Amino acid sequence: MKISGEMIIGLDCIKGEGKEIKSINPLTNLDVEPGYASAKKNDVNLACSLAWSAFKEYRKTKPEERAKFINTIAENIERLGDVLIDRAILETGLPKARLEGERARTCNQLRLFASIVLEGRHLDLRHDEALPDRAPLPRSDLRYQKIALGPVAVFGASNFPLAFSVAGGDTASALAAGASVVVKAHSAHLGTSELVALAIQNAAKTCRMPSGVFSLLYGSGNDIGAALVNDSRIKAVGFTGSRAGGTALMSIAQKRKEPIPVYAEMSSINPVYLLPKALEYKAIDIAKQFVIAQSMGAGQFCTSPGLIIAINGDGLDAFISECKTLIESSGSQTMLTKGIYNAFKSGVSTLKESGAISTIAQGQNSGGENQCAPILFEASAADFIRLPELSNEVFGAATLVLRCKDFDELLQVTEYLEGQLTGAIHMIDGDEDHARQLIDELELKVGRLLFNGFGTGVEVCDSMVHGGPYPATSDSRTTSVGSTAIDRFLRPLCYQDIPKQILPE
Amino acid sequence: MKISGEMIIGLDCIKGEGKEIKSINPLTNLDVEPGYASAKKNDVNLACSLAWSAFKEYRKTKPEERAKFINTIAENIERLGDVLIDRAILETGLPKARLEGERARTCNQLRLFASIVLEGRHLDLRHDEALPDRAPLPRSDLRYQKIALGPVAVFGASNFPLAFSVAGGDTASALAAGASVVVKAHSAHLGTSELVALAIQNAAKTCRMPSGVFSLLYGSGNDIGAALVNDSRIKAVGFTGSRAGGTALMSIAQKRKEPIPVYAEMSSINPVYLLPKALEYKAIDIAKQFVIAQSMGAGQFCTSPGLIIAINGDGLDAFISECKTLIESSGSQTMLTKGIYNAFKSGVSTLKESGAISTIAQGQNSGGENQCAPILFEASAADFIRLPELSNEVFGAATLVLRCKDFDELLQVTEYLEGQLTGAIHMIDGDEDHARQLIDELELKVGRLLFNGFGTGVEVCDSMVHGGPYPATSDSRTTSVGSTAIDRFLRPLCYQDIPKQILPE
Repeated sequence: MKISGEMIIGLDCIKGEGKEIKSINPLTNLDVEPGYASAKKNDVNLACSLAWSAFKEYRKTKPEERAKFINTIAENIERLGDVLIDRAILETGLPKARLEGERARTCNQLRLFASIVLEGRHLDLRHDEALPDRAPLPRSDLRYQKIALGPVAVFGASNFPLAFSVAGGDTASALAAGASVVVKAHSAHLGTSELVALAIQNAAKTCRMPSGVFSLLYGSGNDIGAALVNDSRIKAVGFTGSRAGGTALMSIAQKRKEPIPVYAEMSSINPVYLLPKALEYKAIDIAKQFVIAQSMGAGQFCTSPGLIIAINGDGLDAFISECKTLIESSGSQTMLTKGIYNAFKSGVSTLKESGAISTIAQGQNSGGENQCAPILFEASAADFIRLPELSNEVFGAATLVLRCKDFDELLQVTEYLEGQLTGAIHMIDGDEDHARQLIDELELKVGRLLFNGFGTGVEVCDSMVHGGPYPATSDSRTTSVGSTAIDRFLRPLCYQDIPKQILPE
Repeated sequence: MKISGEMIIGLDCIKGEGKEIKSINPLTNLDVEPGYASAKKNDVNLACSLAWSAFKEYRKTKPEERAKFINTIAENIERLGDVLIDRAILETGLPKARLEGERARTCNQLRLFASIVLEGRHLDLRHDEALPDRAPLPRSDLRYQKIALGPVAVFGASNFPLAFSVAGGDTASALAAGASVVVKAHSAHLGTSELVALAIQNAAKTCRMPSGVFSLLYGSGNDIGAALVNDSRIKAVGFTGSRAGGTALMSIAQKRKEPIPVYAEMSSINPVYLLPKALEYKAIDIAKQFVIAQSMGAGQFCTSPGLIIAINGDGLDAFISECKTLIESSGSQTMLTKGIYNAFKSGVSTLKESGAISTIAQGQNSGGENQCAPILFEASAADFIRLPELSNEVFGAATLVLRCKDFDELLQVTEYLEGQLTGAIHMIDGDEDHARQLIDELELKVGRLLFNGFGTGVEVCDSMVHGGPYPATSDSRTTSVGSTAIDRFLRPLCYQDIPKQILPE
């Protein structure tokens, strides 16, 4: 499988005619060949037109056909072997083991959705039988199932070039729902995107899926993405990225003649609470765990711990002191893109310029371009509530420790917080009363509430919620990870008194 | 139980200080006492502040407590007896039997949601147990439940003064979800609204619910509704009414610092298809059924048949001829409000002025104010596609028959249609092939697909979908009638590794 810089539109590979863009190796800031010509509006139109006609056919595929298609995508991605992994390393600077793990996760996720299709759970079938003799009025026969909304536009994320990109959770769940998909590739990993798209295209060919069930477009700037979301044949949008990007897509989607749902996973500082007894007895242990979680993937996870909240005291001092030792002896990692690195630097500067924070510790720069060394700040809870800029996500390994004067202030901070993907509580025996009060508040702010850990691992299973109140996501009623992610692309349909002879299977 | 014109704010009754409004008897266009002073912004603030503090307590109520509260509301409404029915007749002009039926439906609906609370189905509990020995990484213990979004603003609808108003489906499902509710009364039935609100307030008192679990505000114009949707403590909105009203609320909700979901059920012309064999053998029967469905409630149902689509031929001529006879000998009914009557007249004029339609038949005016006599129009399918104004909902007993030259044109019309609450197909043996093709298209346009009937009855059950693609509703993923209506006010929350001692029940 070789990359060529061509768009994947339905069953064709087409060279774009727009501005050429290239991936950049973040380790060196040097271009990576080949060039990828941006799509033009007519390419968006073609992809959407094919997606619409394919949708009408694809949504009617039998469960076995659809599951086979999705499973074949997983096989094809695995068959790409090191070609895929090597390209992803080149474009993202992520380590090989991490990318291999992410590939496994991506393929497992595809297979999970294939199994859901086979089970038919997502259809949520219901049936209220007719009650012809009911008084005062008879009841009709009523059946219920869920059907796909229509073609879905997916925006690849930079920080998971496989699991939240071309064949990531959005695409997998949309295809499982019976939707066709048009992906706008993330410009940071164009070759990785093309390789995965070719794996999908080949699966579509092998499994005789309609042309247009999947397409991949490239685009510099925002025009192509905007055109895609504005296309009347697109009926939902999946996005993982910045708050600015997500809210821009939401705004476009809402101004359409027919507004459509945008599932944008945007920003989160993921508060971590250290309760008094836990700090008293486990400050050093928690510090060790925290420093690992903070620097994991250079902090480039949506669930990275950006905020630590604790009550002033010896336990907190011990925690901070241990973090300081560990962080100061740690090195730096290459960030995914120059843009992310610049945003990290600028976010750190904004915090520093607030005049309300002090730097506890910073790691060493290990050399190379776009390096992120972990950094730990401290501020008072009162200043955090006073200064909105302290609440902004700094994407990368930066964490702010909030010192609260008492538990009431800790609750005030919680009430002040915006919506978050995760909230973590560290507690041991004796912290229960505080924990219960905190949970009551924190439940209203997060999609996942976790204990004695950090939010960085997101399990793909039935009970997972990778979502949360705005601005963590645009729609707190949904999750982008786990089996219920498929529900985002479905809507209910009721059939009343449908004659037996035309009852669909 | 006596009405006083006071707002119901938490456990208090408060006289408003804004502009006074009165209900109007649509039969006479005369004012109905007492006057209802509009709320002012500080009343909205008070109601929302109480709703927020009540929510934090109410969402934690035990299932039995919450179910008892909701059941007590139903009992209290029934205890109002004829006082409620008489007042509703005065304010809406609807017949006694209809209002008694609607009261029964409203109370049954409350009891259905109480039973859902007891069963706990809406919580959608899930549990993925820990796998500590899993390689390469262990799995945490993951639990999942749904929790309420927060306080809900409900806008009463004019056409169902009980079932889609103060204690209607939105309020019942929100209370069941664990949300507190602030209702903006519909100005067309202020006394009916106050009576029902007093029934809810008394239930809250009897069942020792927190003050603010329910409030009712009055308001002339749009200011109070806008202030309510703009209040940061309101987390979702339920609305049934016009497209202009629904889209205005959507726009306000989306511009908030924290955008919130608006469940607006807005407009639908509910296409009815008469397939060739059905027309050949059953034209007269269908015409008889249709004329009853069209004039039911003066056509003031969201699911009233506004569009009939059929292929040109003798069957269609026979259908139209029978309709003509029946409609011309029918009388008129009083519409709900002068505003609705004026909108009906204006909608009919717009159709006539299009130059593309002819009037088949019109009923007799039976005398009195605000009379709606059923009216049937005809147009060509080609003109329908050419002239957007022919697609507008005319709320009331007006129906447009579209004559298609062949089945392809019938499908073209279907593809052209906007989203609808319902679509109906009349068919008999021999129509199956046409029906299957039509269903493929019509599934993408409607929330409920029904056969050999009309959409005007909306059963309250598990399989009901009273929703549909935009602009029928603002959110096709939901229903405002049936047990799954509760899902609109819930979101998922995941608990990871929660210690046993603090695990909620």
